[in-house]
Amino acid sequence: MQKLVECVPNFSEGRSTSVINNIANAAKKIKGVRVLDVEWDKSHNRSLITIVGAPEPVLKAAFAMIKTATASIDMRKHKGEHPRIGATDVVPFIPVSGTTIQECVVLSNKLARRVAEELNIPVYMYEASAKRKDRVNLADVRKGEYEGLKEEIRTNSERKPDYGPSRMHSTAGAIVIGARKYLVAYNVNLDTKDVEIARKIAGKIREKGGGLPGVKALGFKVGGYAQVSMNLVDFEKTNFDEAYRAIEKEAAKFKVKIRNSEIYGMIPLAALTRAAKNSFKIEGFKSDLILEKRLYGN
Amino acid sequence: MQKLVECVPNFSEGRSTSVINNIANAAKKIKGVRVLDVEWDKSHNRSLITIVGAPEPVLKAAFAMIKTATASIDMRKHKGEHPRIGATDVVPFIPVSGTTIQECVVLSNKLARRVAEELNIPVYMYEASAKRKDRVNLADVRKGEYEGLKEEIRTNSERKPDYGPSRMHSTAGAIVIGARKYLVAYNVNLDTKDVEIARKIAGKIREKGGGLPGVKALGFKVGGYAQVSMNLVDFEKTNFDEAYRAIEKEAAKFKVKIRNSEIYGMIPLAALTRAAKNSFKIEGFKSDLILEKRLYGN
Repeated sequence: MQKLVECVPNFSEGRSTSVINNIANAAKKIKGVRVLDVEWDKSHNRSLITIVGAPEPVLKAAFAMIKTATASIDMRKHKGEHPRIGATDVVPFIPVSGTTIQECVVLSNKLARRVAEELNIPVYMYEASAKRKDRVNLADVRKGEYEGLKEEIRTNSERKPDYGPSRMHSTAGAIVIGARKYLVAYNVNLDTKDVEIARKIAGKIREKGGGLPGVKALGFKVGGYAQVSMNLVDFEKTNFDEAYRAIEKEAAKFKVKIRNSEIYGMIPLAALTRAAKNSFKIEGFKSDLILEKRLYGN
Repeated sequence: MQKLVECVPNFSEGRSTSVINNIANAAKKIKGVRVLDVEWDKSHNRSLITIVGAPEPVLKAAFAMIKTATASIDMRKHKGEHPRIGATDVVPFIPVSGTTIQECVVLSNKLARRVAEELNIPVYMYEASAKRKDRVNLADVRKGEYEGLKEEIRTNSERKPDYGPSRMHSTAGAIVIGARKYLVAYNVNLDTKDVEIARKIAGKIREKGGGLPGVKALGFKVGGYAQVSMNLVDFEKTNFDEAYRAIEKEAAKFKVKIRNSEIYGMIPLAALTRAAKNSFKIEGFKSDLILEKRLYGN
């Protein structure tokens, strides 16, 4: 099976499309890497570029993008609503197919070392790559943002970066790099207008409330109807089909049915095969039995 | 989306692996075609080669295989348990992705014309490509087999081929070519040893018994347990998830539960996405939202 890794670097530029295109083009030049998506937000002044490919080409492409961003974004002049500490702000590696989170941790460390050595930018490791418990969460690493960290990185030993110098890069600031699992954004729309029911169900099924592992859930009103909006941060623990059934069961207690559901963005084939295998008790079913997968694999 | 067509020609050779390999190699030489599977049966003296690719390359590969089989199999000497009328016996084209059954009908006619003109072999069109109602079923076209048809093709106007001469090719006989939908082989194992229950459920859900469209079903005892064994000949009408739920419902009438289910061989990604979309009421979900598909499609 072909090894596939996704990487979604976030850059502190959401206004100049020529800068954003230059960064994306740096990835497009790398053989074996596909740029799947380029998104930007003017008020956040921030862009997201989604690339996929085999681990080594993705590593190369990520470095090439960071190098381009370093040359073209000046954090001393950057303003935007979204929290950030650097020109390249966050770089997550995500296992998609034939790869593990451990391999992505190794990959993220390789990138961090190269960024520190060749570009002289301080790097913090987060999520599965975090080297300290207080750096698992992105918000903790980004505390004080570019402006605050500029001072703290030099003076507070608790804020010492995992790679690179203990001072901000003059224009590019610092970078957060790490590995995390694939996030499935999944919403279930209820056949009721009572948003309280969605909130109660969300509270029941979310991991924090003692519900399903890896499920973050909130209740909203969308298009006049109640919606349970979820992030499934580990679909190997709780997949969308399991979330659907859990909500169906909780909703039944309020005599409410499910109208429909939505998957936001893309999902890995593995999530779909897991859902089918699980829901229809299919023995021995795996992604390789999908005709298209056999065609393109390896 | 990439257009993909499957083709599974059946050849009257199941003993000489060198002949079978030569035929498969003729397909492997065509750029853009992948040989997914080569199977043979000694007592049937018959082989099946599964190829997939874009329509035109698949057409080329099918012709190259037929040409090789024509040069290496002599029907005057062929003996085997399985019914057959030619060295290349049956050639079905199957839409897999981004293609329709109508496109496969066109493709099958192109191949038939080429076979008749360049190899001088009579061709009968069957299934969706049939030009007469009494040629839809393969069994009807193959009536009398090679030995019987040899006489009838010359004397009975009802057996006149759709393409090519009204006489058998001296060594290769005749060929049946056509287009059919993708067949999903799906078995559901019941939590009972009473095979009668499987037979009753099969009788209830099969199309012939007024059940689900495109479902052929039989009841068997497998590994000590009752099994409903199905061919789903049109998964766009009845997919495996719908068959599963129908069986679950019927089995409940006997107070019997489903142990597990099995998909035999490969399935197209579209069958899996349809099942997920249908079972979890997923709005707007399609194969293109599978990350791997986006990568390879173009």
